[in-house]
Amino acid sequence: MNQLELMQELSIKNNTKIVLLVLDGVGGAPMEPGGPTELEAGRTPNLDALAARSSCGMSIAVAPGITPGSGPGHLSLFGYDPLQYEIGRGVLEALGIGFDLQPADVAARGNFCTVDANGLITDRRAGRIPTEEGATRVELLRSIQLPGVQTFVEPVKEYRFVLVLRGEGLAGDIHDTDPQQTGVAPLPAVAHSQPAEQTAELANRWITEATHMLADHPPANMLTLRGFAVDPNLPKFPDIHKLRSAAVAVYPMYKGVSRLVGMEVLPVDGDAPADEFETVRQNWEKYDFFFVHIKKTDSAGEDGDFEGKVHVIETVDEALPDLLDLEPDVLVVTGDHSTPALLKSHSWHALPIMLSARTGRRDLVTEFGETACLGGSLGRIRHVDIMPLALAHASRLAKFGA
Amino acid sequence: MNQLELMQELSIKNNTKIVLLVLDGVGGAPMEPGGPTELEAGRTPNLDALAARSSCGMSIAVAPGITPGSGPGHLSLFGYDPLQYEIGRGVLEALGIGFDLQPADVAARGNFCTVDANGLITDRRAGRIPTEEGATRVELLRSIQLPGVQTFVEPVKEYRFVLVLRGEGLAGDIHDTDPQQTGVAPLPAVAHSQPAEQTAELANRWITEATHMLADHPPANMLTLRGFAVDPNLPKFPDIHKLRSAAVAVYPMYKGVSRLVGMEVLPVDGDAPADEFETVRQNWEKYDFFFVHIKKTDSAGEDGDFEGKVHVIETVDEALPDLLDLEPDVLVVTGDHSTPALLKSHSWHALPIMLSARTGRRDLVTEFGETACLGGSLGRIRHVDIMPLALAHASRLAKFGA
Repeated sequence: MNQLELMQELSIKNNTKIVLLVLDGVGGAPMEPGGPTELEAGRTPNLDALAARSSCGMSIAVAPGITPGSGPGHLSLFGYDPLQYEIGRGVLEALGIGFDLQPADVAARGNFCTVDANGLITDRRAGRIPTEEGATRVELLRSIQLPGVQTFVEPVKEYRFVLVLRGEGLAGDIHDTDPQQTGVAPLPAVAHSQPAEQTAELANRWITEATHMLADHPPANMLTLRGFAVDPNLPKFPDIHKLRSAAVAVYPMYKGVSRLVGMEVLPVDGDAPADEFETVRQNWEKYDFFFVHIKKTDSAGEDGDFEGKVHVIETVDEALPDLLDLEPDVLVVTGDHSTPALLKSHSWHALPIMLSARTGRRDLVTEFGETACLGGSLGRIRHVDIMPLALAHASRLAKFGA
Repeated sequence: MNQLELMQELSIKNNTKIVLLVLDGVGGAPMEPGGPTELEAGRTPNLDALAARSSCGMSIAVAPGITPGSGPGHLSLFGYDPLQYEIGRGVLEALGIGFDLQPADVAARGNFCTVDANGLITDRRAGRIPTEEGATRVELLRSIQLPGVQTFVEPVKEYRFVLVLRGEGLAGDIHDTDPQQTGVAPLPAVAHSQPAEQTAELANRWITEATHMLADHPPANMLTLRGFAVDPNLPKFPDIHKLRSAAVAVYPMYKGVSRLVGMEVLPVDGDAPADEFETVRQNWEKYDFFFVHIKKTDSAGEDGDFEGKVHVIETVDEALPDLLDLEPDVLVVTGDHSTPALLKSHSWHALPIMLSARTGRRDLVTEFGETACLGGSLGRIRHVDIMPLALAHASRLAKFGA
């Protein structure tokens, strides 16, 4: 029995409320040896006071050393082992732009690239053309018709777009056409398995027409497709945990992954932490579980903006009393993964975590940070352990065995 | 997907250097309740200074309570789950003496022993005869011919040798002939499974002839065979991790296990830690990864020589600046397992570990020892987590998922 099956078996309904507050990429690293992390550098009296009355610890998103993308980072927060449950790149990309993906759709991520007179790739990202130039080409590609299926082409950013095929009998088991190097031609779409052969054939037809259309539009005069995928049809979070579940997020990617596991995505008026907490307040009676996602910690980390990330954390801290006023039975605060400004990217570093509940054990941690939480009473856990702990502290898990 | 497959998928090449410094059996235990371990008793200013700027923690070689042999201890250091990947003792021993083992060979470790007039074992190690006397008897045994297979008999050290059978249809699934006690006769070679029956029969023929030859050569007037095995054909470390990998070890066993996973074994001029570090220096440009093995910590532990083990640790500490001068991007210091002088044997106790890298998080540990490392920022990991962490800190692991 895997963990989700165990949760499905043991979870019970009651009137408690659980809030999972995720500061995207909140985990950091010192810019100088021995220095503070972003979280440690910030002035966070509310987070620290909460830590003092919470069970604290460190949590590993996927496994030691593994840097998760947003998909695996969130799946594990929701209790899904991301090595077992995978979401294809195309699906994530489609969800990321808010595309209304249907269960049987095949989505692929597209890159515009540059090819020379012989059709060999000279730049895999077409010189990172501006977003508007990408959008112009997407407009062209929308005119391509395929027999028996609908096609959707949507711009993402710069040289990136999404292609979605909708119809009967499609499958996503198709190899990338991106050869991952320059000096060679894009590959044809090749099916990995028999059921995907028709889809690969349609993709190749589409690529052939697109090739003609783009030929006189350098530098983006060709394209590659990657991560063909369908909705993985994951077991649904509200069913497994028996929680009426809402997602409060501002960015498309996180709304998308929440929808994929069956949460209801609530509209937010504004994009500040206080706006998101207000959304929680307004919907407090309607749901048992709120996933609240703060994006800008990650964005600042990705930009290498240590001070900016500190500032976002302080903004969350300032708004925190609004959330505390709702008196959730269980409040968990952590991140999906670390994004140290030092690295300007996601990283593998463990995340500080705190869980506040009436049934929590005390520890000696009085500050929410990477060093302070090392000694907490949660010890070192993995993200997939968070939902079982949250349910347990909400009296929502029955005894296992007699 | 298991961990090695994940590493194979995510690992990328760059110009960083990783050093894994293994003090064999370095983990210890107090001789008196409340006393220091060997590592804590030693004067180790360089190791302690390194700990102060490293991420420290504790690592479990295989699983709580499990005492690993040298094979599993090292496989796990290299990222192979030793419960999944097993190496037979005979193969380890053959590799340990640099024997050019072929994939289908069956190897067994041999011990000369002493038997009385009734054929009952009186000394399982034949009074630890000198290496030359072992070699003389090996020379005798080489004249034994078996139908349809080649035999190789190679001296190891003192009373130990290796027997290798080479031919068609051989299998290693054979019970040891060593009864592991005195007062009884050696056991016959018995096949565990049908495919090994022919091999067991050949081994018994060989033992019968050997028994006659050795009869008038006391004290080594008989032999036992253990650990019949074939090369397990492990996935290769340099391929999985995309590292040009070198092993710097003085003892045959560790050279052998390194060769088995595909590392290149570098010759060392001398056997002191400083000599091994000098070998690393001379080969610095040629490799990305250096496994450096210090044997004598374990030997002293096995001898129950607390002070001797402290002294070996201090020798490593003195030489450490030579290694630090090379400025590896990632330096990991730990052991393959504990060998407390108290126990005079390998043990299950967790190992202190420190990882030094620019991307490391600070912690409050300022001493490299079993008690001090408990509060470190690596927390409690397993040996199989070490390679993913080392690769991550060397920027050699791509993001998992989008």
